[in-house]
Amino acid sequence: MRASNSSSEEQKFQVRKLQISDKNKGFIQLLRQLTVCDSVSDKDFKDRFWELSALGDDHIISVVEDESSGKIIATGSIFMEKKFLRNCGKVGHIEDIVVDSNARGLKLGKKIIAFLTEHARLMGCYKVILDCSLENKAFYEKCGFKQKDIQMIKYFIAVLPCICVAVDVCVCACIFLFLFKLIRLVGIVGLGHGLDGAGLK
Amino acid sequence: MRASNSSSEEQKFQVRKLQISDKNKGFIQLLRQLTVCDSVSDKDFKDRFWELSALGDDHIISVVEDESSGKIIATGSIFMEKKFLRNCGKVGHIEDIVVDSNARGLKLGKKIIAFLTEHARLMGCYKVILDCSLENKAFYEKCGFKQKDIQMIKYFIAVLPCICVAVDVCVCACIFLFLFKLIRLVGIVGLGHGLDGAGLK
Repeated sequence: MRASNSSSEEQKFQVRKLQISDKNKGFIQLLRQLTVCDSVSDKDFKDRFWELSALGDDHIISVVEDESSGKIIATGSIFMEKKFLRNCGKVGHIEDIVVDSNARGLKLGKKIIAFLTEHARLMGCYKVILDCSLENKAFYEKCGFKQKDIQMIKYFIAVLPCICVAVDVCVCACIFLFLFKLIRLVGIVGLGHGLDGAGLK
Repeated sequence: MRASNSSSEEQKFQVRKLQISDKNKGFIQLLRQLTVCDSVSDKDFKDRFWELSALGDDHIISVVEDESSGKIIATGSIFMEKKFLRNCGKVGHIEDIVVDSNARGLKLGKKIIAFLTEHARLMGCYKVILDCSLENKAFYEKCGFKQKDIQMIKYFIAVLPCICVAVDVCVCACIFLFLFKLIRLVGIVGLGHGLDGAGLK
């Protein structure tokens, strides 16, 4: 696929909702350009797909497919948060915006954001929000967004991998100590032989 | 209620999930300390309550009740976002943290955050996130969070209020023009009489 700014090329890329067949069109590989995304089994993909589908318009994932290559080249998601404040208002949360590195310059990111923002408006949200890096601030400003607050984050470290790492470290330390002692022992014996030899001369 | 740092007072305030009876315990008034929160009818409250309850542990609202006054004095919510990336991972989104202005110093905010963060961990989230103002950054750092990105926002302006404002502006403009023309007409007539009078003198 060739990335250009021609309006005909821009028009041919339409935003649509994720379909279950998109797994075989590089959807997971595309997410991998955003962050850690291991291989997802067909079963896990289907389970998550139907789980999200059950939420209807409260959680949608949008994609752009390149019809010529049959590949998913852009994606972004939105889900509705239902509150009590603002007269039992709703907020649209935009997440996981990514455009294929070979498809830049086609304004697909802007198309995805426009699609998701319009969805939030139609769903009756009083606002739509997203978190992004400082480098992407200018892009979202072009999409009509303004910076407001900061994002705070806390990662959870899984207990099992921690134990595995600790065990690995202990095993490595034991092997290292054993080898160190062995080398030292061999060295002393060798040195003893050398001295003995020198004494014989 | 007296706000103090004694551990006995801290211990007596326990975090629990929102109950439908909390509407009559000042829950909506508490939210009003955070942002715009009009009065919510009993029906609207019930509808939203059961709508969120249907999501089970995927969306919970926590509260702290002051047993002595029977008032809700702190609240915060969390909902699960289900992704395809990070091995079909989940993210906990914390929202709407507020502590009654008369209940500061009891570490209720920290208790609410700990409760919600633990809920996210038990739900298998790989991270928990929230947006806050720069002024509250230090508080969330004490809760184990770190700043990562920035929050971008876009507000929607309701169509009906816009039309009302436009109509109001048009009506005001018409009245202004009418009065302006009337004053001008009266002024010309008056000036005419004045000239006439001057001419008679």
